[in-house]
Amino acid sequence: MKNQVEVVLSPLVLPNYTLEEKIVVVIDILRATSTMCAALYNGAEAIIPVVDTQEAQAYSHEHPDYLIAGEREGQKADGFNFGNSPAEYTPSVIAGKTLVLTTTNGTKCINASKAAHMVMVGSFFNLSVLSNFLKSSKRDVVLFCSGWKNRVNIEDTLFAGAMVDLLKETHFAEDDSAELSADLFRSHGDDLTHYLRKASHPRRFERLGNHLDLALCCETDRYPVLMSLVGDRLLKFQP
Amino acid sequence: MKNQVEVVLSPLVLPNYTLEEKIVVVIDILRATSTMCAALYNGAEAIIPVVDTQEAQAYSHEHPDYLIAGEREGQKADGFNFGNSPAEYTPSVIAGKTLVLTTTNGTKCINASKAAHMVMVGSFFNLSVLSNFLKSSKRDVVLFCSGWKNRVNIEDTLFAGAMVDLLKETHFAEDDSAELSADLFRSHGDDLTHYLRKASHPRRFERLGNHLDLALCCETDRYPVLMSLVGDRLLKFQP
Repeated sequence: MKNQVEVVLSPLVLPNYTLEEKIVVVIDILRATSTMCAALYNGAEAIIPVVDTQEAQAYSHEHPDYLIAGEREGQKADGFNFGNSPAEYTPSVIAGKTLVLTTTNGTKCINASKAAHMVMVGSFFNLSVLSNFLKSSKRDVVLFCSGWKNRVNIEDTLFAGAMVDLLKETHFAEDDSAELSADLFRSHGDDLTHYLRKASHPRRFERLGNHLDLALCCETDRYPVLMSLVGDRLLKFQP
Repeated sequence: MKNQVEVVLSPLVLPNYTLEEKIVVVIDILRATSTMCAALYNGAEAIIPVVDTQEAQAYSHEHPDYLIAGEREGQKADGFNFGNSPAEYTPSVIAGKTLVLTTTNGTKCINASKAAHMVMVGSFFNLSVLSNFLKSSKRDVVLFCSGWKNRVNIEDTLFAGAMVDLLKETHFAEDDSAELSADLFRSHGDDLTHYLRKASHPRRFERLGNHLDLALCCETDRYPVLMSLVGDRLLKFQP
């Protein structure tokens, strides 16, 4: 018997869904969850997602060896080691380090998902490895799109649709959001970068001068790594 | 200069949007707003949308000549004159009458939109006449999908997409929801009924035995009527 997959298109609709006993995959393609995959694949020991810059600085004071990173309004936060571009997290700077990361949208969703059986992180960077794990999980899956300031965004919806499509032999689309996302992906998955350039968030994002990250964040399977939330941190996960 | 059009995909995301000075179009294709178009086009004098069956019965006690109608879980509510199928509202039963209507999703959205400059009602039945009015309005437009129990549904999203597409010369898509809806419509607008049969709410709906209404509610321009909320009631509106 198939399990179900649901798609939460914005944090504001989360109250419609139950998370208990399910695997939640948090999605924030531009750029929190892409960055998490890059950092962990390139050797970070752990990532601690936090909701605000104050909380990040508190970790930093207690653990001076932690790196702190984050963005607000798409820009690096003041006094932080890194921004939120996956390109910054090369092995030479991140290997062996614990990274405290705060972002506008994605981090909040991770923290809002703690009732789930398991909280994971998805981006195009880990699409195949994650879909293979979910297929074998025998668990219901909730794909949780972070959106942009609580609004639906196209890049997270497209990723959710790609995952619904990949899971179709083991998981049925339980809600219209899942059907709609998969349909959108099937129409545009062969030309993601071009299609995303149409979307409002990437437009805003490109105005900020981050032209390269949009194409980068569409690179499927560049950083094939699985992670899950354990206590307050995301750790590499070996099934 | 163009105005903007936004799409609210579920009542839960409404707090993201400002309604003041805008025209809000409430959408509940299956079936509240389709029914409203049928009833008003066929001669109803007014429609009073109410949130619950108690409120409908209170109107009925005070005004025994009012007809009361409504559904819960897709079925006619006990003790009501009508259910929520547009096919019930023929001229012989509805002409000259005031109809008090309560539905699961659509009525709530109408009542939640009162901050707007103007609250209108959209369905495929009045698509062209409504789009022509909105094009000439020189106002920002919010297309408010009622969804199904606060979840996104495909039929309302498709209608919103059809409208975004029709408005493209006068209104730009302000948010990703609008882009995404228009895209979905452009992919499937030529075969609405077939596509909607895939969606979860119509599946549920057809299980309830209302096979005919799905095809009926997809009939574009069948009941070309404009209406707007004045006080507590929807009245025919002549621009």
